[in-house]
Amino acid sequence: MKDERRRLLADKTPFPDDLDERLRAQFTFLVEVDQLKTVLRQSPLAAADRRENDAEHSWHLAMMVVLLAEHSDQPIDVAHTIELVLVHDLVEIYAGDTPLYDTAAGMDQQEREAVAADELFDLLPGDQARRLRALWDEFEERRTPEARFAKAMDRLQPLLLNWMARGGTWRTPGVTADDVRARKAVIGDASSSLWKAGRRLIDEGEARGWSRSAAPED
Amino acid sequence: MKDERRRLLADKTPFPDDLDERLRAQFTFLVEVDQLKTVLRQSPLAAADRRENDAEHSWHLAMMVVLLAEHSDQPIDVAHTIELVLVHDLVEIYAGDTPLYDTAAGMDQQEREAVAADELFDLLPGDQARRLRALWDEFEERRTPEARFAKAMDRLQPLLLNWMARGGTWRTPGVTADDVRARKAVIGDASSSLWKAGRRLIDEGEARGWSRSAAPED
Repeated sequence: MKDERRRLLADKTPFPDDLDERLRAQFTFLVEVDQLKTVLRQSPLAAADRRENDAEHSWHLAMMVVLLAEHSDQPIDVAHTIELVLVHDLVEIYAGDTPLYDTAAGMDQQEREAVAADELFDLLPGDQARRLRALWDEFEERRTPEARFAKAMDRLQPLLLNWMARGGTWRTPGVTADDVRARKAVIGDASSSLWKAGRRLIDEGEARGWSRSAAPED
Repeated sequence: MKDERRRLLADKTPFPDDLDERLRAQFTFLVEVDQLKTVLRQSPLAAADRRENDAEHSWHLAMMVVLLAEHSDQPIDVAHTIELVLVHDLVEIYAGDTPLYDTAAGMDQQEREAVAADELFDLLPGDQARRLRALWDEFEERRTPEARFAKAMDRLQPLLLNWMARGGTWRTPGVTADDVRARKAVIGDASSSLWKAGRRLIDEGEARGWSRSAAPED
């Protein structure tokens, strides 16, 4: 991968030679990330009988930040939080989506995604490559209130879709309602009111049999 | 439509009765706009053999604002411009997409979309309904530098996709390269460098036969 240049989407229909160099890099990146629309997630849409893709998901998170930022326990910079969610899944273009309840795939996920980030962001002019990489690192590290809120949206959005689907990925074999609560608890790191609502939906889903309660005996 | 309440997506799996009222309105809206993922546009994806939907498109525009804002001829508030593109197509959930080159459908488009905006945004708490309506109106009216830049992205993004598809909707029957230039000229109201690049792609596409040159004789 280091020596051999990946074939880019923009290579299929190369831009005219006389295009400004910086703009060419930006257009090349913007065409390359069209692939985010083809990375399928596990979550079922509420509006159609198919799974969601990463671009749709990222747009939905951005809308959630706009409307739910007021529920953050700490003050957050809304614009910055939106930028975090817009870029947070980009590396999956090269690294693929890692399902939340797939523990094995999650193990080398960090490494695969770091390599993907290097390769993808380096398509941009240097200053913008560094800026997007910094946004992605910030989201992953979850040390700022903005990153914690962005992560909360990333967990709350599929929770809403699973609620609408009366189960969705909560029905993944081997997954219990306790697993769901454990994976979603990071919502509470950003917003106590949203986590209260999220837990309410998970609990109610469990009560209705949309997720599996842990067997008390084994 | 006025007397009869539209059946909402959230009505399919109603939220628990004890959910906080403001949060319920926000969740109801956020579930309803899941439908943006089902509104198909004419543009072909670069990354797959299918048409783009409005949610994917909106995410792509937001990424373009992040990376291309530097090309605006006037200083713009990037965060505000991102919010404009995130919400600019929401009314199509109820009003449908109006293809750029469909002149007849364009005639009552404004009216249909204004009715849709009233109905959709009113699902939100009053303050947020007014805020999103103001964003949508601002985008439509194109009086601010941010709205002009948002509109420029809305025209530049399918131009990139059409370039990648070696024609795409430029091949719409009855449409000429001059029509394309006329419809895309608004890019120049926001950015002379982006319009220079956009025109270059349209001209080159015409030279390669990806769009129809106007017949000189009839």
